[in-house]
Amino acid sequence: MNPLTSPLLTDLYQLTMLQGYIDQEMHDISVFEFSVRSMPENRNFFIAAGLESVLEFLEQCHFSQEELEYLVGTGRFSQKLLDYLERFDFSGSVHAMAEGTIFFPHEPIIRITAPLPEAQLIESRVINLLHYQSLIASKAARCVIASDGRADLIDFGLRRTHGAEAGLFAARSTYLAGFIGTSTVLAEALYGIPIFGTMAHSFIEAQKDEKEAFINFAYSNPENVTLLIDTYDTVTGAQKVIETANLLKKKNIPVRGVRLDSGDIAALSKEVRAILDNGGLKDVGIFVSGNMDEYTIEELFAQEAPIGGFGVGTRLDTSADSPYLDSAYKLMEYAGKPRLKKSEGKATLPGRKQVFRRYDDTIMVQDILTIEGVEYEGLPLIREYMMDGKRVSKTLSVHEIRDYTLEQMKTLPANLRKLQKTAPYPVHIAESVMSMKEDIEKKLGTNG
Amino acid sequence: MNPLTSPLLTDLYQLTMLQGYIDQEMHDISVFEFSVRSMPENRNFFIAAGLESVLEFLEQCHFSQEELEYLVGTGRFSQKLLDYLERFDFSGSVHAMAEGTIFFPHEPIIRITAPLPEAQLIESRVINLLHYQSLIASKAARCVIASDGRADLIDFGLRRTHGAEAGLFAARSTYLAGFIGTSTVLAEALYGIPIFGTMAHSFIEAQKDEKEAFINFAYSNPENVTLLIDTYDTVTGAQKVIETANLLKKKNIPVRGVRLDSGDIAALSKEVRAILDNGGLKDVGIFVSGNMDEYTIEELFAQEAPIGGFGVGTRLDTSADSPYLDSAYKLMEYAGKPRLKKSEGKATLPGRKQVFRRYDDTIMVQDILTIEGVEYEGLPLIREYMMDGKRVSKTLSVHEIRDYTLEQMKTLPANLRKLQKTAPYPVHIAESVMSMKEDIEKKLGTNG
Repeated sequence: MNPLTSPLLTDLYQLTMLQGYIDQEMHDISVFEFSVRSMPENRNFFIAAGLESVLEFLEQCHFSQEELEYLVGTGRFSQKLLDYLERFDFSGSVHAMAEGTIFFPHEPIIRITAPLPEAQLIESRVINLLHYQSLIASKAARCVIASDGRADLIDFGLRRTHGAEAGLFAARSTYLAGFIGTSTVLAEALYGIPIFGTMAHSFIEAQKDEKEAFINFAYSNPENVTLLIDTYDTVTGAQKVIETANLLKKKNIPVRGVRLDSGDIAALSKEVRAILDNGGLKDVGIFVSGNMDEYTIEELFAQEAPIGGFGVGTRLDTSADSPYLDSAYKLMEYAGKPRLKKSEGKATLPGRKQVFRRYDDTIMVQDILTIEGVEYEGLPLIREYMMDGKRVSKTLSVHEIRDYTLEQMKTLPANLRKLQKTAPYPVHIAESVMSMKEDIEKKLGTNG
Repeated sequence: MNPLTSPLLTDLYQLTMLQGYIDQEMHDISVFEFSVRSMPENRNFFIAAGLESVLEFLEQCHFSQEELEYLVGTGRFSQKLLDYLERFDFSGSVHAMAEGTIFFPHEPIIRITAPLPEAQLIESRVINLLHYQSLIASKAARCVIASDGRADLIDFGLRRTHGAEAGLFAARSTYLAGFIGTSTVLAEALYGIPIFGTMAHSFIEAQKDEKEAFINFAYSNPENVTLLIDTYDTVTGAQKVIETANLLKKKNIPVRGVRLDSGDIAALSKEVRAILDNGGLKDVGIFVSGNMDEYTIEELFAQEAPIGGFGVGTRLDTSADSPYLDSAYKLMEYAGKPRLKKSEGKATLPGRKQVFRRYDDTIMVQDILTIEGVEYEGLPLIREYMMDGKRVSKTLSVHEIRDYTLEQMKTLPANLRKLQKTAPYPVHIAESVMSMKEDIEKKLGTNG
């Protein structure tokens, strides 16, 4: 049972609810939408990500013999349900915003239309896939804004991501948002994302001395010489880089950069820059890592730190200032009738929705959240990706998605590009949605 | 290439460093230790978790043909390195604290002793495995303290964990720390962790009305009737539970509980309790969910909310108030010589270490961090789990580890059981460690 693909990576209540649906033969078409309920304190927009992995999940979501045997063994489920699960094959449709699309609270980024038990069973994993990837793409986009083209950004976070899949998704989501690559090797092997790396302190410590470590590393990796200079003392380390570079020049091995990973990065980067410049190494870039995020990037550039690249890790890949989104996957329609919940603070807007985005020249100025079929001026953001369980859209490469995201980012109004909270972007909830909501509420009466 | 087991789930620099080690034939024994550098603002102790998955990873860490072909295809690596990787088989030792052990900053919870390239290659994934599981076990232990035996705690977080593996690890780590189970089905299938579940709002919304939904659910799941009552209005929902229970009584189906998921939980739980009691349902428990964590649990009990169970989800499984630990896996010794780094704020303590824990009666009072072999009074916490690449310890079930953790928790001093920050627990760094550190610093000189 592989957790990455097993349909048992779900909440028990999905199966107990299915038992009810199957007993009552509730196989009519249901519509669920995934959206985020509210904007966290430290965000002004989100970037949609995770659609590709949702489509993959739906295509291969089946119960293996081993999984069925486990379910039988629990004694919890009826034969009728077990028979249903044995035949399970997702037959529904997926409508979604393209990966890389900017979105806001209440706007669905995915809509699943399928017989109720199918759309219900997949809930937990669909949220799990969309939530994390959108969380990280959104955080990474803020780093890209803070850097504003002044430095290369590289995902360095694998080790402190929450597990293997988070490590891999972090590499992909940050690349989509405009990072130039990651340190995670598997992200190149699986997705073709460019990978980068320097050396660790252990490499320096294990050698006779720091300079010998630099030289040995360069001999073994002549194309990729970025030297970590803070193991013992950053300034002394920078001086040794000059000596190393002079030695390597005779062998035609260029030193490409130095890495700083501790201390007062703003002050040290300036000091190191001066040492390198005086030593004739004007082309050697300064790369920094250690507790980086959009705030430190902005602050370092405000202090005019001469930094050409950032390794951004833990705070990015855990979205540390906002480690989750208040996201939900909610029933919008069943058997042709719109549905809603009224729960305090968690009420839903019913119906199948579309989002139209309006622009002033090239800048986005307003979104309209409407019932599908009610047309507005503007660009419709939601389109079909899967029909009757089969993909109806071309699978994009991660590079194509990245290009699209970068185009999206250009449409962002200036105030939303601030790292600090600003006035929310206007998302108008159309009359069609509100009147549908009121209609149902009236029918439900005060008693629900 | 399965991200859960692939040795390519690593940082590029591990491979470029290996290229250097292999070229220089640096195959001497190295010693690395994993520890946490500092205590986050909202924690007073940690719980070690993840050892079992590290041992599994080391046992099966090999390069497949597909992975080797990818590496060849990159053109980055020497034939000598590729040959080494093709034969890769972890041959080292693992010393560790048992899963479930309480630990503090600077104390290693795992020590890897192996030829340098082996111990280096595994770094990224070893951190990735230990960091998240210890993070979540530590957070879950705080929830258990807050509940203090007054309520059952169940992990409900799968959907907003950071990916599939995080979902599974969260279920295991919270169970170890004293939760009674999880909603994640795969955690029962793989680890035998008890699973629990109720129903979602969609189940209610899809039916003719709330009461019919309750009855239909109960007919299909007669052993497991916990009814979600906040879809439309919590108080009305509670009244419908009375009618439902009277109806179900005739079929001998007991209503076990109700679930509240929104609104003012303290006030609503009291109101619902009164309704249920007046309706003759004194045995029906109140289960709550939605934005729960140790703080809300403490607060709800402070308000004397009559709650018998908590579904604790997102904030727990993302460790939202402290979503990462400042953890590291650092070289302590190579080729018989202790090693250290002096980097500002990230300096290491050299040598192979042991931790002795001293008790006053049954309560822990002081830890002593010493060089292995230098004995102190107290209980040594680190022992051998793997030798020459083979396990030398019995694999414990998740239930045995949980029992051990609960015993550990009884040894915690009262002040560390507070949710608020208290005076740090005394960890004495022994003379043997400090003198080794000073020796190396002297040898390194001011120049490093």
